[in-house]
Amino acid sequence: MVDCGEGTQHQLKLHRVKSSKIDHIFISHLHGDHYLGLMGLISTFHLNSRTSPLHIFGPKGLDEIITLHLKYSHTQLKFPLHFTETSTEGKNLLLEQGNIRVFSFPLKHRIPCTGFSFEETYRQQKLIKEKIVGTGMSVAEIQSLLQGKDVVEADGKLKYVASEFTHQPVPPRRYAFCSDTVFDPTLIPYIQGVDLLYHESTFMAADKERAKLTLHSTTEEAATIAKTAKVKELLLGHYSIRYVDLYPLLWEAKAIFDATHLSEEGKTYVIK
Amino acid sequence: MVDCGEGTQHQLKLHRVKSSKIDHIFISHLHGDHYLGLMGLISTFHLNSRTSPLHIFGPKGLDEIITLHLKYSHTQLKFPLHFTETSTEGKNLLLEQGNIRVFSFPLKHRIPCTGFSFEETYRQQKLIKEKIVGTGMSVAEIQSLLQGKDVVEADGKLKYVASEFTHQPVPPRRYAFCSDTVFDPTLIPYIQGVDLLYHESTFMAADKERAKLTLHSTTEEAATIAKTAKVKELLLGHYSIRYVDLYPLLWEAKAIFDATHLSEEGKTYVIK
Repeated sequence: MVDCGEGTQHQLKLHRVKSSKIDHIFISHLHGDHYLGLMGLISTFHLNSRTSPLHIFGPKGLDEIITLHLKYSHTQLKFPLHFTETSTEGKNLLLEQGNIRVFSFPLKHRIPCTGFSFEETYRQQKLIKEKIVGTGMSVAEIQSLLQGKDVVEADGKLKYVASEFTHQPVPPRRYAFCSDTVFDPTLIPYIQGVDLLYHESTFMAADKERAKLTLHSTTEEAATIAKTAKVKELLLGHYSIRYVDLYPLLWEAKAIFDATHLSEEGKTYVIK
Repeated sequence: MVDCGEGTQHQLKLHRVKSSKIDHIFISHLHGDHYLGLMGLISTFHLNSRTSPLHIFGPKGLDEIITLHLKYSHTQLKFPLHFTETSTEGKNLLLEQGNIRVFSFPLKHRIPCTGFSFEETYRQQKLIKEKIVGTGMSVAEIQSLLQGKDVVEADGKLKYVASEFTHQPVPPRRYAFCSDTVFDPTLIPYIQGVDLLYHESTFMAADKERAKLTLHSTTEEAATIAKTAKVKELLLGHYSIRYVDLYPLLWEAKAIFDATHLSEEGKTYVIK
């Protein structure tokens, strides 16, 4: 889960996401709309007698806040809670699990803030089933081929060449999330060429000065970042409540970067 | 406002309560469902450029939690926030404003917890309009009569007797709120004879042992407190999510104390 505003538990229920499946929570910064739902979620995990570890990644101070809440509610959590403080300097590996790596990178906002990128190290290959049949391959050998690795015997002899048994390799996918940030081209190296970029667009272009003042971005600025970084698709979000109709925001961004979408409450976006 | 769980802002909006009208917030204890909406509400007041003071009354530690949240979000509130720590010993006057006094009193729960009572010092009288007409009374004199006070001249001479110009005096009203508590007859002196008692009834009578274990009350226990304290009406609440149909809870309580009602989301209860 990335960020956890007030009412997140309620939204999870509404959209039928099982909160017990959440093992890793990444918090970009300590403005209320990005983390005030966290204590409630932790409390619910505790009340539901969760035992599996919960890993939280977030800025300096978040662990202190959590600890203070637990102290005054006299709560001894029934599950291990691991906290990793994010750095606001450079790109840092936070987690590697299966074929996914998660990184943080700095964003420029009013308080310490990071973006996150989720990067596949490889993409599971698709087997050519008719070629496998009758070879007597072991499960370990098949798994190796699925990862695009050739199977080599103990004496170094090549046994199976991955490219013979699998379809054309598919490049691994990358998703980057930039929660709250002023227009900042220095973040481009961190998100260069990702398949999907979420970039805040709090304001329309006409409110550019207000964006600068509050360290937020406009639609056109988000689109410019996406275009310059050569990402494949852009997802806008974090709209100011002043805009009732969001389509004008979309149109402004699309004029600069066509492959732009509006993020909408409860919608799922599949990265192709 | 009494207690402020996660999502309170959302509920206020849903039920068209203007949050800007809230000047006093009373927090019974530091379990998440009773205070995790507070930081969000404070943030919203700040973002909406509130300038009028906010008074928060709650247990030890709440000010420390608020201060820590404000520290890490780099927030210098635009309005004065006054915090009063509640005591878990005896009945204490927290606030006197207009004809209302607010008191705290101890409840027995797993962590420090208080109830609150809201007591009118007098009830505004109703004028007998036809008697006022033609007397040439001043606004100040009418206000005095409305409070049930006779109007006396500078030389001590009785000018107007309140009982002649007003209908029969109506006794002041009292409302007591007992958020989370085990069955505890020692709280009766604090709530004796109130017009309306809110008393938690987390469990049905069959789950009495579970209530004792978690320091909550059953329907029958809430009704017994209401009956023994000779309150006029009882409002149940804080139902465990295990009960989908709440009417059996009501029936259990009514068997002991008939003037019982179920509290329901968004409903208004008028104290006669």
